[in-house]
Amino acid sequence: MEQIFELSKEYIEEIKQVIADKDEAKAKELLNELHAADLAEIYDELNIEEAKFLYLLLDTEKAADVLAELEDNDRERFLKALPPEVIARQFIDEMDSDDAADVIGEMSEEKQEEVLSHIDDAEHAGDIVDLLNYDEDSAGGLMAKEYIAVQEDWNIEKCIQEIKKQSEDVDDIYFVYVVNKDNILKGIVSLKDLLLHDSKEIITNIINTEIIYVKTDTAAEEVANIMDKYDLVAIPVVDSINRLLGRITIDDVVDVIREEAEKDYQLISGITSDVESSDHVFHLTRARLPWLLIGLFGGILGAQVISHYEGDLRIYPEMAFFIPLIAAMGGNVGIQSSSIIVQGLANNSLGLESTGKKLFKELSVGFMNGIICAALIMGFNLIFSDSMALSVTVSIALFIVILFASVFGTIIPLTLNKFKIDPALATGPFITTVNDIMGLLLYLTIGRFIFGMVNVF
Amino acid sequence: MEQIFELSKEYIEEIKQVIADKDEAKAKELLNELHAADLAEIYDELNIEEAKFLYLLLDTEKAADVLAELEDNDRERFLKALPPEVIARQFIDEMDSDDAADVIGEMSEEKQEEVLSHIDDAEHAGDIVDLLNYDEDSAGGLMAKEYIAVQEDWNIEKCIQEIKKQSEDVDDIYFVYVVNKDNILKGIVSLKDLLLHDSKEIITNIINTEIIYVKTDTAAEEVANIMDKYDLVAIPVVDSINRLLGRITIDDVVDVIREEAEKDYQLISGITSDVESSDHVFHLTRARLPWLLIGLFGGILGAQVISHYEGDLRIYPEMAFFIPLIAAMGGNVGIQSSSIIVQGLANNSLGLESTGKKLFKELSVGFMNGIICAALIMGFNLIFSDSMALSVTVSIALFIVILFASVFGTIIPLTLNKFKIDPALATGPFITTVNDIMGLLLYLTIGRFIFGMVNVF
Repeated sequence: MEQIFELSKEYIEEIKQVIADKDEAKAKELLNELHAADLAEIYDELNIEEAKFLYLLLDTEKAADVLAELEDNDRERFLKALPPEVIARQFIDEMDSDDAADVIGEMSEEKQEEVLSHIDDAEHAGDIVDLLNYDEDSAGGLMAKEYIAVQEDWNIEKCIQEIKKQSEDVDDIYFVYVVNKDNILKGIVSLKDLLLHDSKEIITNIINTEIIYVKTDTAAEEVANIMDKYDLVAIPVVDSINRLLGRITIDDVVDVIREEAEKDYQLISGITSDVESSDHVFHLTRARLPWLLIGLFGGILGAQVISHYEGDLRIYPEMAFFIPLIAAMGGNVGIQSSSIIVQGLANNSLGLESTGKKLFKELSVGFMNGIICAALIMGFNLIFSDSMALSVTVSIALFIVILFASVFGTIIPLTLNKFKIDPALATGPFITTVNDIMGLLLYLTIGRFIFGMVNVF
Repeated sequence: MEQIFELSKEYIEEIKQVIADKDEAKAKELLNELHAADLAEIYDELNIEEAKFLYLLLDTEKAADVLAELEDNDRERFLKALPPEVIARQFIDEMDSDDAADVIGEMSEEKQEEVLSHIDDAEHAGDIVDLLNYDEDSAGGLMAKEYIAVQEDWNIEKCIQEIKKQSEDVDDIYFVYVVNKDNILKGIVSLKDLLLHDSKEIITNIINTEIIYVKTDTAAEEVANIMDKYDLVAIPVVDSINRLLGRITIDDVVDVIREEAEKDYQLISGITSDVESSDHVFHLTRARLPWLLIGLFGGILGAQVISHYEGDLRIYPEMAFFIPLIAAMGGNVGIQSSSIIVQGLANNSLGLESTGKKLFKELSVGFMNGIICAALIMGFNLIFSDSMALSVTVSIALFIVILFASVFGTIIPLTLNKFKIDPALATGPFITTVNDIMGLLLYLTIGRFIFGMVNVF
């Protein structure tokens, strides 16, 4: 019985020592103990020479698994250090076609060809080339060519022979796919059904034809939504005339779900590319600078807006007190509204409401929150401030800013989505900056008007 | 072959018409066509009486599935409208124990007892009661009691008989779990292995003992990380002496992953509870108000800070120009830093770096971004502003604010995590508000000092 592996400093030091000693026997022993996913985790703690020494000792099947588990940029760096024939024979040969295509897809075209030419199994190489043609964010890009297909007129015994024949190539078998002579998908049979029926039974009699499948061009995110919704562990992929081409397993889809969620999270937090806290300082800086620059630009625009009211501020410096409040509230409401839309679009839960109805609802929410916040700040100012003009200005401006930001935060992601642009882009820098500036403009304009009125009387 | 179902207005109208006509035959026909997950989706479009009419026509197995697929608050509302014996016989009886425990766990204790007393299968009722004892965010709370266990000394033939016996209760069988006489987990055997070996083979000879399992008190999030990392479709759950108690399937874990991601996303966007754009206006307002109130409170504190500098502003109103810029940049950097930590904690990718090292790195990133932003704004001000004091103040303050926000954004989530508080709380209102105010304080203090110095000369 295996305990869950926990990466520790001591363990890494032990491994580094074994590598430094070039102790192959000891290294192989350590490698045997560890799961491919654990070995991939260790990569981050090794330098490239150490990783090479260690990974080239792996038997090819495990080496393939480790390579598939490595993170994209780790893998890229590692493969750069290896000659094409080693990559092909030590790693790609044993990989599932989908993982192999992902790995090879990351290489330059030149290197792709070289690696492919060193793969001994021509069918495997052919599968990989087929898969390279699909967009990586589509069902075609996710699917693997390793699956078991049986003919509808076979009996169970023949099916089991087929599974036996292919079982070395296909790791996780939960279902076999049933096709006709033209390879058109007819249904599925679970291994459970194969086990529980008589071996002479014909497949057509136990086939389940109510199956859910996707086409090669279905978007990865939609595949994820479908498998999640219908609780599937694998889904067949067909072409436009329903010929079976591959299958997608749930582990790949879990990765899609995680990546989508992370991408949306990074966009809303103003980070522009996929980084982790363990990445290099330079990477981290570059990933964050774009939003900061947008924020800087927005701040400069804000300064321009305020500078137009320099005269007013000289007379009524108290107008400056609530500038941060107005700017912050506009940004906050904008993020709230847009993030609800973005999440609704991502998990398909927006329902059947029309855009007009959504806007009206958002306006209602904005109205209620606006009234509450405006009333609270009015109460506060009536007690603690002696400027009636300021009190009125802040409350009116806050109310209008909240309403505006609600509507704006709803419209922008819906519009982006309509034009097939990722709506999550609207949650980050853009929406807060626009709302900041709009808020300032509204606040100061209303302030000038109200302070001016007070002056007249 | 089934097409993916797409909910449309026309379809809902057709269903509503059938329900209005009380046309049971037609309704049953429609229900037969649809998958449980689709029927759950339709719920949102029906009123409670319509839903009752429709769902009580379902056969019990499908009814159970639909109930399991409904969203928590939909299910709660629906079950409130039904008497306990109908809930027990029509829905709970056929549900898997984990789903049944989730449903019953949402009820009042009184109703729980009533419903449980109406479940005819005593073993099923017992399983549910067992599961109710576990924290719902633990492996125990996720696991189901439906799994197939076989003894290590059985042969394959006997295994298959056992599967046959239990197959009605257990839907998705991919593995059977092997235990000894004391029910202690020894390993697993895949259905593929059962199919491919001779029926007289003894289980011990084909058992895979290198299995990954979790304990009942393992946190749900960790279960998700483990299943994701090792690409598992099911994981056995054991007690402290390794007795097999249940299994968790990947579909439940996908839900955990989605929910965690959504929760973090809502926290960072300032929404305090699980809402969807289709929820009621009142719900939406209540979910958003807390952050707005914190923002309001922060804005008031900000106003207090600025009011201390009213005299300076009267003389140098241009100091107000860059108030929004400083506040916004502090908030932005704070969110960036904290969100990277929160994500790293969530997906276990922080690596082995010490907190000191992380802080140093964050400081370096802050330093670089701070220098770049300060230099840019200095360049801008040198060209477009005629106040040297203002230019210097803005650049120095911006640099310090970015450094401060980087460190603060890193420390807070790490500290929360150390005290077992959800670090995602740090990404939302708290961090932006604190950084806003700190930014203002720094900016105005530096401004007073520098403008003062300029005055002296």
